[in-house]
Amino acid sequence: MNLGRLNHVGVATPSIEKNLELYRTLFGAEPHGPAFDLPAQGVRVCFVDTPNSQIELIEPLGENSPIVKFLEKNPLGGQHHVCFEVPEIHAAKAEFEEKGARILGEPRIGAHGTLVFFVHPKDMGGVLTEIMETPKSAH
Amino acid sequence: MNLGRLNHVGVATPSIEKNLELYRTLFGAEPHGPAFDLPAQGVRVCFVDTPNSQIELIEPLGENSPIVKFLEKNPLGGQHHVCFEVPEIHAAKAEFEEKGARILGEPRIGAHGTLVFFVHPKDMGGVLTEIMETPKSAH
Repeated sequence: MNLGRLNHVGVATPSIEKNLELYRTLFGAEPHGPAFDLPAQGVRVCFVDTPNSQIELIEPLGENSPIVKFLEKNPLGGQHHVCFEVPEIHAAKAEFEEKGARILGEPRIGAHGTLVFFVHPKDMGGVLTEIMETPKSAH
Repeated sequence: MNLGRLNHVGVATPSIEKNLELYRTLFGAEPHGPAFDLPAQGVRVCFVDTPNSQIELIEPLGENSPIVKFLEKNPLGGQHHVCFEVPEIHAAKAEFEEKGARILGEPRIGAHGTLVFFVHPKDMGGVLTEIMETPKSAH
């Protein structure tokens, strides 16, 4: 396994709309598409494209959203996770576990419609790391 | 101005060597080249390539390193900044300032040998954002 594409950087925000306004004002950037709910992850999501990658803006969805605590500590928002692509999610999960990295829950459908899992930040130098199966149609 | 290439994600770490070991073990990834000191920024730096971008591992260089406080709050390390490319650094600085974003200091030579500046995280949704002039030879 090699380090895969940096699919996106996840940025938590109390307001996707306000954050998009920053990207619009400072960079002239528009969102990739409208924001959408991702109930399986407890977040509302909106992507902003760079020429080579994406910024994923995530806003809490529901009271039990996993990013509520992050936003209590970082009221303005901030960098929340990075996401690397792998060719096959179950093989990646098995390999990570064999090497002693803790996986947070079972693979589930992520914002790009393919399976993802998260590696515990304590096993990745303090960085919450999402591992995502490359979409078949991508790149 | 549009949102430029996501040149890298800056990850602060108490030990580049230990962090490289994580990338090696979990992803089979080797560093782009040896670590080097960047005294102007008060950090020691090492890049790890993804197919489309880079992770920049940064370790404190000297007692006054700007990442010492970050590591006190995040002893394991963590996501420190994102870096977007622009075609011309002085034009970008003027445009950001005109739009009310606070710039941290004057443009200075960054890890890729071109001029960079940082935008105050309070003006960028809590994300410390590096703006970097695209290297002439790149891409």
